[in-house]
Amino acid sequence: MLLIADNLQIIHSPVADAVAAQNVDAIAAMVQRYVAAGAQAIDINAGPLPRDAEKKMAFLVRAVRAVTGLPLVLDTVNPAAIAAGLGEDAKNTIINGFSLEPARLDAVLPLAQQFNATIIGYLLRADGHVPADADERLKIAGDLYQAFESTGLDRSRLIIDPVLVPLSWRRGTFQAREVLNVIRYLPDLLGFQVKTVIGLSNLTAGSGKRSKRVYVEQAYLALLAAAGLDMALVNVLHQGTVRTSRACRDLLSDNIFVWEEERGHGVQP
Amino acid sequence: MLLIADNLQIIHSPVADAVAAQNVDAIAAMVQRYVAAGAQAIDINAGPLPRDAEKKMAFLVRAVRAVTGLPLVLDTVNPAAIAAGLGEDAKNTIINGFSLEPARLDAVLPLAQQFNATIIGYLLRADGHVPADADERLKIAGDLYQAFESTGLDRSRLIIDPVLVPLSWRRGTFQAREVLNVIRYLPDLLGFQVKTVIGLSNLTAGSGKRSKRVYVEQAYLALLAAAGLDMALVNVLHQGTVRTSRACRDLLSDNIFVWEEERGHGVQP
Repeated sequence: MLLIADNLQIIHSPVADAVAAQNVDAIAAMVQRYVAAGAQAIDINAGPLPRDAEKKMAFLVRAVRAVTGLPLVLDTVNPAAIAAGLGEDAKNTIINGFSLEPARLDAVLPLAQQFNATIIGYLLRADGHVPADADERLKIAGDLYQAFESTGLDRSRLIIDPVLVPLSWRRGTFQAREVLNVIRYLPDLLGFQVKTVIGLSNLTAGSGKRSKRVYVEQAYLALLAAAGLDMALVNVLHQGTVRTSRACRDLLSDNIFVWEEERGHGVQP
Repeated sequence: MLLIADNLQIIHSPVADAVAAQNVDAIAAMVQRYVAAGAQAIDINAGPLPRDAEKKMAFLVRAVRAVTGLPLVLDTVNPAAIAAGLGEDAKNTIINGFSLEPARLDAVLPLAQQFNATIIGYLLRADGHVPADADERLKIAGDLYQAFESTGLDRSRLIIDPVLVPLSWRRGTFQAREVLNVIRYLPDLLGFQVKTVIGLSNLTAGSGKRSKRVYVEQAYLALLAAAGLDMALVNVLHQGTVRTSRACRDLLSDNIFVWEEERGHGVQP
């Protein structure tokens, strides 16, 4: 499972300050820390970016690229900002993302086509709501794949996010189990090994103490790995999350088991 | 998943000393600690007990029973010691255990019949060796169930242990995955919801630092829970193990998710 650092968020003031000051070194130092902790890709969570969206995203891409060639994930609902990020580097960059929502279909999906970029597709209803169960997610996946296919992009350019909701929501644990089923069934449904991604922190959003959340997150991460998840968006500074992910790789891969020392930077899955 | 404390082992000198001195209070204090930590059953690991086997096991059963009515597991290869333990209390006591090995079949399995006790059956070859894969384990399970059935005991009295081996063994990770498959397939094979148990500490026996082992153990525990494991023999003083087990219960049960406070003592699954 490839670990995408979810740490670089413009909502955090050190990031916002560095962006405001165009301080490449500050961003670079953060990213170096994520890579040292085990990040294998970097999500640039730029939020809605109401002002100077394009300039800010372009700066962030340049700043991250100053220290790593790892895949980047451009995480914003702002199509102009995505385009600006792709303008800096489209080669190893993932758009995050589109869905059946008309605004996303019309303005974000075409950017993947234009830049021949990989794109994350969310299993959300056209009205933006979360589907009720696995069946509805799988139906949406069919529609989403059809929309994606119409771009002519190679199918390896699609990554599907089944949309994890907080456990504290109504039917939250049911939804968490349905997400595992979706990850398991998607390749059969679409007829190829479509890649999947999950935002792990959603699971325990707004809930309880970190000391308790950590065991729920780690247990669920193991279940995701067993279901076949390809990528997880996680806080890589949580050592337990990174170690759990590595433990799952050791347990679930066909490699001879070794008690590995800390792995090097930027390991591909 | 019911957590059986594997902590009470006569191989540990505080336990051996308490047994030698017939010190009920010392054993009682240990057991109270296990129960407070989350134990839902207590394994009395008496080893081979070459001397005073019956007296020592009877003492341990009395000492544990002085503080808790939780299920006991009599864990020894010595049939006389098992009989002595059952003589103290057979009502809520599990024999650990028998296998297709002739000595166990002939001397241990009949004790379950005699005392109408629950018994753990190990999926081992008749020569005591570990099976090569899931298929061989399932074949052995069929033979083991046949032997068990001949006692006339109700099938709910059988608990199957698919036998986990250390990851550091040759094909250790393969074996760990096969054990998950066995847990998944056993109910179909035997035609009823046969209960299963695993000794978790075997997984990382003889391997590396605790700080690394813990993530492998916890991830595997989540995979066991998802496969449908009913009971796990664990070190209940490892808080992460207990919390992971509870997290799995919260994730995998149909209950509304709640951020529960520490649970009370002796909760049944």
